[in-house]
Amino acid sequence: MPKQVRKVSKRPAKKIAKGAYLFDAPPSPWLVPFDGTFSIAKARSAPKKSERGKAARPANRAALREHVGALYDLQQKLYADDRYGLLLVFQAMDAAGKDGTIRAVMTGVNPAGCHVTSFKGPTYEELDHDFLWRVAQKVPSRGTIGIFNRSHYEEVLIVRVHPEYLRGQRLPRVGDQIWEERYESIRDWERHLARNGTVILKFFLNVSRDEQKKRLLSRIDDPTKNWKFEASDLDTRERWDDYMEAYESALNATSTPWAPWYCVPADDKDFMRQQIAAIIHQTMASLPIDFPSVSDEKRAELGMHRKRLLEL
Amino acid sequence: MPKQVRKVSKRPAKKIAKGAYLFDAPPSPWLVPFDGTFSIAKARSAPKKSERGKAARPANRAALREHVGALYDLQQKLYADDRYGLLLVFQAMDAAGKDGTIRAVMTGVNPAGCHVTSFKGPTYEELDHDFLWRVAQKVPSRGTIGIFNRSHYEEVLIVRVHPEYLRGQRLPRVGDQIWEERYESIRDWERHLARNGTVILKFFLNVSRDEQKKRLLSRIDDPTKNWKFEASDLDTRERWDDYMEAYESALNATSTPWAPWYCVPADDKDFMRQQIAAIIHQTMASLPIDFPSVSDEKRAELGMHRKRLLEL
Repeated sequence: MPKQVRKVSKRPAKKIAKGAYLFDAPPSPWLVPFDGTFSIAKARSAPKKSERGKAARPANRAALREHVGALYDLQQKLYADDRYGLLLVFQAMDAAGKDGTIRAVMTGVNPAGCHVTSFKGPTYEELDHDFLWRVAQKVPSRGTIGIFNRSHYEEVLIVRVHPEYLRGQRLPRVGDQIWEERYESIRDWERHLARNGTVILKFFLNVSRDEQKKRLLSRIDDPTKNWKFEASDLDTRERWDDYMEAYESALNATSTPWAPWYCVPADDKDFMRQQIAAIIHQTMASLPIDFPSVSDEKRAELGMHRKRLLEL
Repeated sequence: MPKQVRKVSKRPAKKIAKGAYLFDAPPSPWLVPFDGTFSIAKARSAPKKSERGKAARPANRAALREHVGALYDLQQKLYADDRYGLLLVFQAMDAAGKDGTIRAVMTGVNPAGCHVTSFKGPTYEELDHDFLWRVAQKVPSRGTIGIFNRSHYEEVLIVRVHPEYLRGQRLPRVGDQIWEERYESIRDWERHLARNGTVILKFFLNVSRDEQKKRLLSRIDDPTKNWKFEASDLDTRERWDDYMEAYESALNATSTPWAPWYCVPADDKDFMRQQIAAIIHQTMASLPIDFPSVSDEKRAELGMHRKRLLEL
């Protein structure tokens, strides 16, 4: 095993001073702690009884509408300020609700400043580069929001469950520590992005095995949902435990103050959407972004332009 | 100063076991050591007397021709093997001979597997992303050679000498440790590339101040060279000492076993080209690349195709 493979840097310290990073990860019961103690078996896939059911639904929907309205304003400021980019990463098992959540939370934001990239299986060209190559190109530019529907994390999830996919990547050296190496590459890269102005939030939509079965069944039984069903989803479901292990390991290794993971209960869609919108809203509201103010000098200059315009 | 800015990881250890990395940096008097002890004031800009002059020229040219011939073969193997990419980075003061060296060393390699990227001042779109964004896109794919004529190092060279350029980059936070941070980002990224199969060699063409003056003078005086002269080269020359300081710091911080710097004397072009070709040649020759061998099974299969072809 080459030395470069063995050496993996330590995880970040547990205690983090406020204001130490580009932004402070909004506290939340769903925040994956930075100390590697996250347990997927203990993570809730549904809200508490008091937070769900018929009574909760209208409240969740009203809250979502409020957040969406706020995001519209904040995105305009993000754009005018032109210093921060916002990167939202969505990962989940099939039918957990990634597409619906992106639609529900981001519809209402000006699409000129918001780009969604859905990452599918890699192309030959992509396989001929390092695994961050294709995602790095899609990182949002300053002033915009970028959404990854699936992401570089597939490289430590599906590829970890199916290490035979590594063969297609034609790496000259593959050692046992490849996953630790990839975690480190991801942490390093996300820290680099954070230092350069990219605010990163990552969401794992935590659907239960039972709820997934219900949703996949309805994709088979309901003709209007047939188009969503893929037989390969069952192959993935068959490896459920392996996926959960890969998720737990990846979330523990890569939830950092500069790119936190949130493991959000996904069995109740209204609850989930509202929770995610709240975290994004709170993050954006905490950034020192506003429409650039105009100096007296600039205002005087505008006065001259005004005068000239009237004469033209 | 945010914490993420303060924490900068240690440099790699000094002693490196053979075979510990993707490749072993060819030993050379020009190799910038990995322990941070490189001194640009002590670095030679010209070969020893015994290695230059009229007698040395034909020997250097003959050696270059030999290396170039070998590179042609090796690049074909690199392509057929399709696991490694080779990234060559060239940095230097103006008129040190970057373009001429790239031409002299790489002409003879199949251009289908060799791409040169010349990095100029960043565009608005590039400024709207992190400083590695534009270079990451140009990293050579497996099986090919990529050449950077200038590179991400400009971000710790010209931008360090002219920190006012940072304003155009619209970073939300700029602290005193920005250069250390950038060195770390570069080291981390290059290590990630190395782990994923990119062999990186970096060349600083070390021209002396006197020799640069001669070459710039001839660009002014010789009508056939006028097109090469840019007045801004004089502004850069005026800040010579600042540039040397920035180069020394950058080379010390980023010469690593997985991406070594070579500081090659550039006052004698024939000598320089031969030296650089030799380092590239030695590196490629050390890689376990060859035309893929054909298994007995595959050969039997080819026999069947042969039979069928004759009947068609």
